[in-house]
Amino acid sequence: MSTPTLNHRIRLAARPHGEPGRDDFQHDAVEIRSPGPGDVLLRTRYASLDPYVRGRMSDAKSYSAPMEIGDVIVGGTVSEVVESTVDAFSPGDVVLSYGGWQEYSVEPAARLRRLDPAAAPITTALGVLGMPGFTAYAGLLGIGRPQTGETVAVAAATGPVGSAVAQIARIHGARAIGIAGGEQKVARLRELGVDEAVDHRAPDLPGRLAEAAPDGIDVYFENVGGAVWDAVLPQLNEFARVPVCGLAATYNATELPEGPDRSGQLMGAVLTKSLTLRGFIQREFVDAMFEDFLRDMTGWVADGRVQYTEDITEGLDSAPEAFGGLLRGENFGKAIVQVS
Amino acid sequence: MSTPTLNHRIRLAARPHGEPGRDDFQHDAVEIRSPGPGDVLLRTRYASLDPYVRGRMSDAKSYSAPMEIGDVIVGGTVSEVVESTVDAFSPGDVVLSYGGWQEYSVEPAARLRRLDPAAAPITTALGVLGMPGFTAYAGLLGIGRPQTGETVAVAAATGPVGSAVAQIARIHGARAIGIAGGEQKVARLRELGVDEAVDHRAPDLPGRLAEAAPDGIDVYFENVGGAVWDAVLPQLNEFARVPVCGLAATYNATELPEGPDRSGQLMGAVLTKSLTLRGFIQREFVDAMFEDFLRDMTGWVADGRVQYTEDITEGLDSAPEAFGGLLRGENFGKAIVQVS
Repeated sequence: MSTPTLNHRIRLAARPHGEPGRDDFQHDAVEIRSPGPGDVLLRTRYASLDPYVRGRMSDAKSYSAPMEIGDVIVGGTVSEVVESTVDAFSPGDVVLSYGGWQEYSVEPAARLRRLDPAAAPITTALGVLGMPGFTAYAGLLGIGRPQTGETVAVAAATGPVGSAVAQIARIHGARAIGIAGGEQKVARLRELGVDEAVDHRAPDLPGRLAEAAPDGIDVYFENVGGAVWDAVLPQLNEFARVPVCGLAATYNATELPEGPDRSGQLMGAVLTKSLTLRGFIQREFVDAMFEDFLRDMTGWVADGRVQYTEDITEGLDSAPEAFGGLLRGENFGKAIVQVS
Repeated sequence: MSTPTLNHRIRLAARPHGEPGRDDFQHDAVEIRSPGPGDVLLRTRYASLDPYVRGRMSDAKSYSAPMEIGDVIVGGTVSEVVESTVDAFSPGDVVLSYGGWQEYSVEPAARLRRLDPAAAPITTALGVLGMPGFTAYAGLLGIGRPQTGETVAVAAATGPVGSAVAQIARIHGARAIGIAGGEQKVARLRELGVDEAVDHRAPDLPGRLAEAAPDGIDVYFENVGGAVWDAVLPQLNEFARVPVCGLAATYNATELPEGPDRSGQLMGAVLTKSLTLRGFIQREFVDAMFEDFLRDMTGWVADGRVQYTEDITEGLDSAPEAFGGLLRGENFGKAIVQVS
């Protein structure tokens, strides 16, 4: 068997208008680079698919700089060390990295975190024990701060962030309302042990949500936006907290929705209910909370109090299609591509 | 001179549709009541006019129950004790009370706060040393938390809340941008010593605000809404804090503005800039901060670091018209009616 010399990769070919299509991605192959001093050559085993990447494909100003045309699509990866220039890593080591949609990447050793394959399946570093799990933990406990007996609602509740939010809320003594689309996902929510499972695709979402929250909602973990947010807002209690983590329903929008303009009404609700809306991304909480997260979450996963689901697609070439499915809510659990 | 026996008062005759008109108020006179055990009979000297009262004239759910048709219009008052059933108060004492738009009121002694006419002009208990001043102090320091060198923007900046916000921000080492309507108010802002004074009635508010905030805005104290908020939002920095204290521009609105619907765009800004929007009313901070406020603010007023302006109208009957002017932004400083 000859040593591979080519790195197959998927790059941004064009900024998507609405839902990303085939022509927005370009597949190519280039020679594998050698690592410079302090760098490590990695072979990608698993690549993470995450909704935030849709934002970085656009030119809009956001918390992260947009990708440039021609850039490899970004994303977290679980990779194996092929060649190392530093003592800390040796070939065969498994690490959490940020290689994106390609078979090989060269990364500074300082940015890698070693994974212990004996402690947990290595794919969990992309999901429940990784960025999505930490997003749930930091947003819920750092901003939402649910108290015993309060009601926490979360949408996309079978997804890697939402399902962690619902389960952590229950561990902290709150009542958890999970919202998801379709009967199959609602059934999954029941398995996860939420107190109420609400299907946002069935008729009269506002009415059914109100029924599911007879004491109102104290924390709404926002990762969807759109019609679910419209149904949640009237149910929020005075002093409710809304960690705003994502707005997946709007990522593919190309123009503002028709009126009336309800932005003033939203500000009115913030005022009259003394609401807190707080946008965040997990990295601002890393220094303060990541260590606690890893300890707590590893324990909860080990003792079964937090369950997780992975939706693994085979082969790098399937990434664009799997990513489109993720944005349409078709995935079932943490979306991952097995690259090698 | 005979002892007065009648209490002239102004009551809510109808719920206003849009801007309150003459027919929404009813003037009448009833016999003065005697105080029951634990109560005190008060003669109103000054009645406060405040924007929040517009909200309580409507039927909409809010942080305070709406007034009922027939109720005396509510509001803070500076009053003199006429007759007391408790040892703590004697005739002639001056107190802060909540008598509303009437010449006499009977109130529980426990709800009164004694004022010292030697320490500060008694009208300041309705303004800079009262609820508006505390609203500014609590919202700015409890939620906005400006750091040295940060930029704080505030609208209605010649009003009793806004002018206190701007001046407290500067005392705390922040750069203060005051926004107000018309040249006269802008001139007053310059006297108050703000770093930038912006006229929201002149053309191209967004452009001039951007110029006034070359480093962006870190804290926006929201008490207006509407076009000013639209101009501020693009200037907010990452992690900016927005204490939402009032939305005076929208209080008289009878229907939602025309589209497009920008509420999703607003949530998008919250997300991508990691903003904090926090609605509040001052009373949630009373236990934690009122004592500090009285000490700090009394000192700042005494040494001239905080200036204040009062807009005093003569006679109870002028209250409805003065209140309308307040809602239209025509007042100049804290709006007060001298009742007796």
